[in-house]
Amino acid sequence: MPEPNQNRVSLPVIKRLPKYYRYLTEMHQNGVVKVSSSELARVMGTTASQVRQDFNCFGGFGQQGIGYQVDVLLEEISKLLFSERALDTILIGTGRLGRAISGYLTGEARGYRLIAAFDKSPKEIGQQLSGLVVQDIANLNEFCSLYKPDVAVLCIPRTSAQEIAPQLVGLGIRNFWNFSHYDLSVAFEGVTVENVHLGDSLMSLGYRVRNS
Amino acid sequence: MPEPNQNRVSLPVIKRLPKYYRYLTEMHQNGVVKVSSSELARVMGTTASQVRQDFNCFGGFGQQGIGYQVDVLLEEISKLLFSERALDTILIGTGRLGRAISGYLTGEARGYRLIAAFDKSPKEIGQQLSGLVVQDIANLNEFCSLYKPDVAVLCIPRTSAQEIAPQLVGLGIRNFWNFSHYDLSVAFEGVTVENVHLGDSLMSLGYRVRNS
Repeated sequence: MPEPNQNRVSLPVIKRLPKYYRYLTEMHQNGVVKVSSSELARVMGTTASQVRQDFNCFGGFGQQGIGYQVDVLLEEISKLLFSERALDTILIGTGRLGRAISGYLTGEARGYRLIAAFDKSPKEIGQQLSGLVVQDIANLNEFCSLYKPDVAVLCIPRTSAQEIAPQLVGLGIRNFWNFSHYDLSVAFEGVTVENVHLGDSLMSLGYRVRNS
Repeated sequence: MPEPNQNRVSLPVIKRLPKYYRYLTEMHQNGVVKVSSSELARVMGTTASQVRQDFNCFGGFGQQGIGYQVDVLLEEISKLLFSERALDTILIGTGRLGRAISGYLTGEARGYRLIAAFDKSPKEIGQQLSGLVVQDIANLNEFCSLYKPDVAVLCIPRTSAQEIAPQLVGLGIRNFWNFSHYDLSVAFEGVTVENVHLGDSLMSLGYRVRNS
């Protein structure tokens, strides 16, 4: 694969990669061998030109005009999305949402390894969670200095996230899967944040339900 | 409040409403009385012109040039996002994710009332969940005919969602909070779907971690 030109890969393109991955996986499972940019565009809900532009960010993935090999395309996109080494991940907040997300991380998610979970509540500390024992948040400094996690998952309220973010960034964590409503990317330069706003999604749905 | 011109309210505007709501709530809590479109634009990460355009979709929310009253703005946006009547909501799938989402729906989410939870697994059926007893998915027809839920939350795999979607739509459910990767809005016209793609979010994060 040619070296991707990273400067050219915009966030919207990166955000479309998982969708390509999902559709190509399905095609591959269904025995589809070749796919054209226009066929891919149709299932993706975009244009053939957009598909070709997206793929050109990563070197093209094959020759235009003769279609793409589904298995090659799937392998190349998998290489982009999943590294050989799983990302060492810690969970901050082991309430109901944190517990569900820990199950998701250890069960379904590919490319991540949950290595610790932290909470400040005495009720949570010491409990089992996805094969780990929930640790006191007071252990965070020591743990991170020793194990240098790649990613922190924040399943805590906005104010708690705001409080703990400087500590996490100070400990060298630059990547966040963020379920709190505190937007770290505004306060900290150079951090990578994927925000999941469950509440926003429900509020938008409510508006649409009542106005549809 | 003037009647909103629904034809003018595009999905991106609707998706920004919760963010306005969150920032205005915070301002209100901090005792801020008035806010200009440019101040709002700064926290929202957009432009003053965008803010004014967004608000004009709903009648404007106040006079330009003199700023907006935070409490009035917050109330008007709350009216848009939350109805007086909570939306009757059913959960399909009570695995780990479904359990977490049920906790979120009954605990933190405003404007929704979880009235039933369904699963097909004998291990789940009969279990307690957020004050409900998990029902056999075989009861779905009877329940929906009787209670006519407004919203279904899908916490099931893609293939299960694809199987059950025609039944749900046939039972009159038009609104979906969808954690499966099956995109109902492609297959069914006129349904309202909020998709939450946790897996996509993690995959994008992985790419960004390795290329940052």
